[in-house]
Amino acid sequence: VFRRKQGIDVRTRHEVTELDLEQRRVRVRDLEGAKEWWEAFDLLHIATGAAPFVPAVAGADAAGIYTVSTLQSGIRVRRAMDERKPRRAVVVGGGHVGLEMAEAFLMRELDVALVEMMPQVMNTLDPDMGALVSDEVRREGIELYLDERLEAFEVGDDGHVRALVTNRRTLPADIVVLGLGVRPNSDLVAQAGVPLGIRGAIRVNERMETGIEGVWAAGDCVESFHMVSRQPTYVALGTVANKQGRVAGINIGGGYATFPGVLGTSITKFCSLGVAQTGLRTSEIEALGLEYATAQIEGSTAAHYYPDAAKITVKVLAEKGSGRLLGGQIVAGGASRVDSGSDAYLAAKRIDILATALQAGMRVDEMLNLDLAYAPPFSPVWDPVLIAVRQVIKSL
Amino acid sequence: VFRRKQGIDVRTRHEVTELDLEQRRVRVRDLEGAKEWWEAFDLLHIATGAAPFVPAVAGADAAGIYTVSTLQSGIRVRRAMDERKPRRAVVVGGGHVGLEMAEAFLMRELDVALVEMMPQVMNTLDPDMGALVSDEVRREGIELYLDERLEAFEVGDDGHVRALVTNRRTLPADIVVLGLGVRPNSDLVAQAGVPLGIRGAIRVNERMETGIEGVWAAGDCVESFHMVSRQPTYVALGTVANKQGRVAGINIGGGYATFPGVLGTSITKFCSLGVAQTGLRTSEIEALGLEYATAQIEGSTAAHYYPDAAKITVKVLAEKGSGRLLGGQIVAGGASRVDSGSDAYLAAKRIDILATALQAGMRVDEMLNLDLAYAPPFSPVWDPVLIAVRQVIKSL
Repeated sequence: VFRRKQGIDVRTRHEVTELDLEQRRVRVRDLEGAKEWWEAFDLLHIATGAAPFVPAVAGADAAGIYTVSTLQSGIRVRRAMDERKPRRAVVVGGGHVGLEMAEAFLMRELDVALVEMMPQVMNTLDPDMGALVSDEVRREGIELYLDERLEAFEVGDDGHVRALVTNRRTLPADIVVLGLGVRPNSDLVAQAGVPLGIRGAIRVNERMETGIEGVWAAGDCVESFHMVSRQPTYVALGTVANKQGRVAGINIGGGYATFPGVLGTSITKFCSLGVAQTGLRTSEIEALGLEYATAQIEGSTAAHYYPDAAKITVKVLAEKGSGRLLGGQIVAGGASRVDSGSDAYLAAKRIDILATALQAGMRVDEMLNLDLAYAPPFSPVWDPVLIAVRQVIKSL
Repeated sequence: VFRRKQGIDVRTRHEVTELDLEQRRVRVRDLEGAKEWWEAFDLLHIATGAAPFVPAVAGADAAGIYTVSTLQSGIRVRRAMDERKPRRAVVVGGGHVGLEMAEAFLMRELDVALVEMMPQVMNTLDPDMGALVSDEVRREGIELYLDERLEAFEVGDDGHVRALVTNRRTLPADIVVLGLGVRPNSDLVAQAGVPLGIRGAIRVNERMETGIEGVWAAGDCVESFHMVSRQPTYVALGTVANKQGRVAGINIGGGYATFPGVLGTSITKFCSLGVAQTGLRTSEIEALGLEYATAQIEGSTAAHYYPDAAKITVKVLAEKGSGRLLGGQIVAGGASRVDSGSDAYLAAKRIDILATALQAGMRVDEMLNLDLAYAPPFSPVWDPVLIAVRQVIKSL
């Protein structure tokens, strides 16, 4: 379809095994036919993405241990659910993938344990906000083991995982999912001499061109510019990848476009809880040596008397002196069972107010009188985001 | 409680009947004791609000015809529902109050007719967006009469309304609600010489002081500054009133605060539909003589494959040349019965992204790469607001 409609010669099941920047060519292997050849290029675009991290511990290659990144990898987990009918799942890692998989296992009525190396789940949040998520994980009936490190897997005679061993205990497991983050797929281009940035991600400029002229890159394999810290960062998120791909495509096609960078905005749903953040968190602000103030308020997603009003906690971080907004975090909804059908988690999408203000470089005093939408089903008279802004101004 | 805790001498059931700016005093009447006296002031704050408009047509004072503004007025309607058990309601006016009352009558299983003078309901929206709301009103089973003007009421021998007469037909009615907007309560202060602005609202400066030194005003009785048109406007909304009241209070208390103005942001829920707007609409832009482009896109409130994904229509208006964002309108959800429990209407709260960008004075090209929150339950990879922004940029 692509070849016919767009004039693009798409080759699936073909792997690039080597990149030759001197002679501007790539070594291609046909995974079906086992042929190999050199393919010349004028311009090269790298979109190799990232791969889930699998720690080098004993038993990590046993059957029944999964990572989840592609559609295909999700189908594999579902097939294992149908075929082996596991009764007990252990999830390693309490980030986006870990929490989403834990929820999926709960919905399938498995016993679920979650192991996280850090003192909280969602460790991209400040500890006070992360604690709200940890509480909710326990409330939904998950055995939560914080501050515990995966050390090995016990494998049965059938080659299938039987248990997970941490530094503190052994947890029986019929199925294991690893949600330990991703690493950029940059080995091949690094070997060829394309410069890398932080965390092994490919360094690119605002137009998404790498350090090598005519070689472009976008998505989970590249480094990003953080618009608040003004330093390099690594963000592997679909919405960023998509925006970067658009910019790279315009430039490769002879146009001109720039990508301004990222705020690290992210959002996730765990059962009836919505969790979102944007900008810098406390530890990042401290690492930059900035003086800051924070405010955390507990409010309501709707007018307090409205039937579906749910709890929302908003934290705002701002710079002392300048009053510049630095970041924000939201936890909304929760305290209800998986199947309750409450959509209170949607209120976490209010993070977009803070993301827009951050990208516009607003000061918190400029945000105080933001003319946000109010009607009882949607918000209290003062939106919880503005209540948090009012609060942080007092501490500046 | 107020007197004890805050040192404020609150007198309910006392009416101010005259304002004497020369001698800095107000004439007070005790509605219980029928006493009257002059009360002196150093500083005066006017928070007289607004009153629902009642047209001077025959029968308008009949029993069974209601306006809804205060809590008390809502209780009166509910009491009438319980006592007279009306089977057929007629609502006049298709704005916020009209639509909310129509929904309330539907939930009480009444037959509902809605009469609107303009060619669409929600006539603060552009016609193409308003048509989506009119369609939903009909889909929910309301008899909708557009382009029809209320001319009189027919009143029964018992003094109770029996029917509503328009320029085209007679509509039987057991109960009538008028949702025809409000008028600022400014007669008293105008007689005393306090200068008024547009639509009879009290003119105030950025600190909420009227044209008379030491006389302050805030809320539904005052004129506002529109931050996009940079012209006076009249907005009677609780969230604006509350923000203005805070600014007036700080200034009256000897502090210093300013109110930057309004964007005209508003939101409402009609059954499962959310309707929101901010900034200028097409007719307002044309009246200002600005050159503009618009884009209207139909998207999804969540990833298209996500179970609860609902329809969302976003319209964005931007200035040609400068690329400045001018306004936006959102209609989300809909096409489901009153009791479906769908919360898709909440997606209209995305208007806050546009409101924040407007208040920050962003150009649409600056908004293109806004780092908004994405995860499948919350949004497509490109938020519908950004898809509309992309679209409008092409027309600039």
